Amino acid sequence: MKHNNLKAMGMEKGQLYETIISSMSTNGRKNAAPIGVLCKSEEEVVVYLYQGSHTHKNISNSDYFVVNLTTNPLLLTECTLGDFPADYFYEFKGNPVLKENDAFFISRVIKKKELVHKNELGSSPMTVVTAKVEEIVKNKKVIRPLNRGIYAVIESLIHFSRLEIGDAKNRENLYHKIKEMDRVVRRVGSASEKKALQEIMDAIHEKYNNLDEKK
Amino acid sequence: MKHNNLKAMGMEKGQLYETIISSMSTNGRKNAAPIGVLCKSEEEVVVYLYQGSHTHKNISNSDYFVVNLTTNPLLLTECTLGDFPADYFYEFKGNPVLKENDAFFISRVIKKKELVHKNELGSSPMTVVTAKVEEIVKNKKVIRPLNRGIYAVIESLIHFSRLEIGDAKNRENLYHKIKEMDRVVRRVGSASEKKALQEIMDAIHEKYNNLDEKK
Repeated sequence: MKHNNLKAMGMEKGQLYETIISSMSTNGRKNAAPIGVLCKSEEEVVVYLYQGSHTHKNISNSDYFVVNLTTNPLLLTECTLGDFPADYFYEFKGNPVLKENDAFFISRVIKKKELVHKNELGSSPMTVVTAKVEEIVKNKKVIRPLNRGIYAVIESLIHFSRLEIGDAKNRENLYHKIKEMDRVVRRVGSASEKKALQEIMDAIHEKYNNLDEKK
Repeated sequence: MKHNNLKAMGMEKGQLYETIISSMSTNGRKNAAPIGVLCKSEEEVVVYLYQGSHTHKNISNSDYFVVNLTTNPLLLTECTLGDFPADYFYEFKGNPVLKENDAFFISRVIKKKELVHKNELGSSPMTVVTAKVEEIVKNKKVIRPLNRGIYAVIESLIHFSRLEIGDAKNRENLYHKIKEMDRVVRRVGSASEKKALQEIMDAIHEKYNNLDEKK
């Protein structure tokens, strides 16, 4: 059976998943990069690509890319630290797919928009790509797509439970970390994860009323 | 069928999972607390309990406790921020179980050891409890026990990919965060997650040779 519904892999609308995107250059060179994929609907995804990256260049040429799902920490690490050798890939209907993955789906670009991403470290030109899921292939019965939301909640709860230990400096440090986790959840998480972080923040502000005044 | 094998819930030997432990006082008062559970073997777990906590007191009295598995962020949050009301529980063969969970197992204490846990913020007397899994009940077909290992790897990779942006101070800050994730993985993660962190650390030390010298 040919799937093209992201729910079949446990991917939920509005959440962002950690994946490896593979793509191919015009001369057939295969590339893979760790990229967050936003599930826009059951059949559409959105990715933010740095202009100048291999993935950006390849997708601009071909309008196709592959989203590989894996929970293998070594595969994710190797992909970030360097380039995969050619024998890590095979071709599926003309698309480069990672041999070792839990599932993958072929995506076809349907919209592109350019923007400049700004943060405290500078600004980078990016392209926001919307793509249609054309075909999903599952290699495992149960797929566990990686979403950082629930872990950001857990990290926050661990920090929260340590707020009472130690001095004011320790407390500010932990509060800073929880605020970072709050940003993660807002970007990648589910409605109930966002609500959980809100409850944690409220509990902190109720207990300690001067945290936001300090540096 | 009566299970007592932790593999049935995807729990692996040597890994630590985020759970909610429920227990009951001698006068029947039910308590729940978020506690990490180490999977010691397929039928044994180990938990570290702060002496003075409700869980510690209850387990000292009854020698029984319940490990509840959930991925519900609001349940985990409520449990950390305050006490659950009595109607969150029901009794299963005399044990207090959370109504809303994905799975649970009844554990019977078989060994106790006292120790003093020391860290930078002080020292706390703890009891290390080893328990036998007596019975597992699954309320969902697929259980996803929460282990922080793969997320510590992902956080580290995100920090790693930002090492080249910004100044030396930013780099030290990110390196400090990766070292924290390395400690998490060593404590809770799998062999391949530990190896992934080692590869990330090696890559950092190869690229930047003076990070450990600075404060």
